[in-house]
Amino acid sequence: MGHREAARIMLEAGIRIIQYREKSAPARAMADDARAIRELCASYGATFIVDDRVDIAYASGADGVHLGQDDLPIDIARRLIGDAIVGASAGTPEEARRAEEEGADYVGAGSVFPTSTKGDAHVIGIGGLRAIVGSVHIPVYAIGGIKLEHVRALRSIGVHGVAVISAILGSPDPPAAARAFVREWSGSADSRLSPGRHSSRRGASRRISDPSWAAP
Amino acid sequence: MGHREAARIMLEAGIRIIQYREKSAPARAMADDARAIRELCASYGATFIVDDRVDIAYASGADGVHLGQDDLPIDIARRLIGDAIVGASAGTPEEARRAEEEGADYVGAGSVFPTSTKGDAHVIGIGGLRAIVGSVHIPVYAIGGIKLEHVRALRSIGVHGVAVISAILGSPDPPAAARAFVREWSGSADSRLSPGRHSSRRGASRRISDPSWAAP
Repeated sequence: MGHREAARIMLEAGIRIIQYREKSAPARAMADDARAIRELCASYGATFIVDDRVDIAYASGADGVHLGQDDLPIDIARRLIGDAIVGASAGTPEEARRAEEEGADYVGAGSVFPTSTKGDAHVIGIGGLRAIVGSVHIPVYAIGGIKLEHVRALRSIGVHGVAVISAILGSPDPPAAARAFVREWSGSADSRLSPGRHSSRRGASRRISDPSWAAP
Repeated sequence: MGHREAARIMLEAGIRIIQYREKSAPARAMADDARAIRELCASYGATFIVDDRVDIAYASGADGVHLGQDDLPIDIARRLIGDAIVGASAGTPEEARRAEEEGADYVGAGSVFPTSTKGDAHVIGIGGLRAIVGSVHIPVYAIGGIKLEHVRALRSIGVHGVAVISAILGSPDPPAAARAFVREWSGSADSRLSPGRHSSRRGASRRISDPSWAAP
């Protein structure tokens, strides 16, 4: 399945953030793909984030970029794309706090569970996730090996959303899987996450404080 | 051999332009490498260009970026890195003219000869190179399978420089090979290339009108 088709399935299901993640395509093809998905997201009122590649984020007019620990530093990304959203991966409270200090708008925390998408990812578990949520004021999204049955527990910890690839695109019926995740997230309204809990220092991050959950 | 060591060998030999070309390393490692080589180039008064990755060019403070036909469009790169050098690959006079129109500061023309570095590269030969040189006003650098014995012929066509990887780094004695190329280029003073022949529309391109030849 191509990136655009995957994005359409997720948007149709009600997913509010799409992250474009592509490691090996030529830059122009990436920019074309990203631009098409950005437009698709815009038509659904969803937020579009590009993983890793600040140049592709800029070229496609994305809402933001997500930076792993091996990607460009946050301050350099910030200078390149101005006040767009800059997200950062964190596996520990220290990494999360550093990301917040460096100006990240949100943190992607994980890998919460073992995942096949990133085979070498360090698994932090629910306990590690809780520690990260408690360590920063910016929104935290849970990522890594997340399945439908984890959603309630994760939301009750106070995460701002959950990021999913395999549990949707690896399922026999991706549209149904995507809808199930949206329903499960929306249904877990017993969340301890109050709307005003997460502060944001700039306009850009307000744009990501809305969506119910994220799928990279 | 690592990128930094390769750059040092070429700079020691008198090479005046270094292009950093890395397709698979994480962005932060690329930026670190590129920054180190940029500083090395600066200490030799040489020009530093990053291949493909506009974000890495920006992050490392490079003098410019080189864009292939599959890389980001020139206008987008220009918006990201301002008046730094933007070079473009061209395999035909049409591509070269389009690059010039779109604001490229120089053209890398090739592949002149068959090359192992880019196995799928279209070979244009001396005739194709001559056609490109005659079609644009910006400097043209010859690239692709260039060996020491080609230098005089290429310079006599009016190229601004030759770009070499394999003939130096694939040789049993890279420092000696690099010195031989510099000597051969400098010795071919019967060039029909007069200093004032190539116009440049912006300050940045003056920075690349100097060096005797380029090694990506």
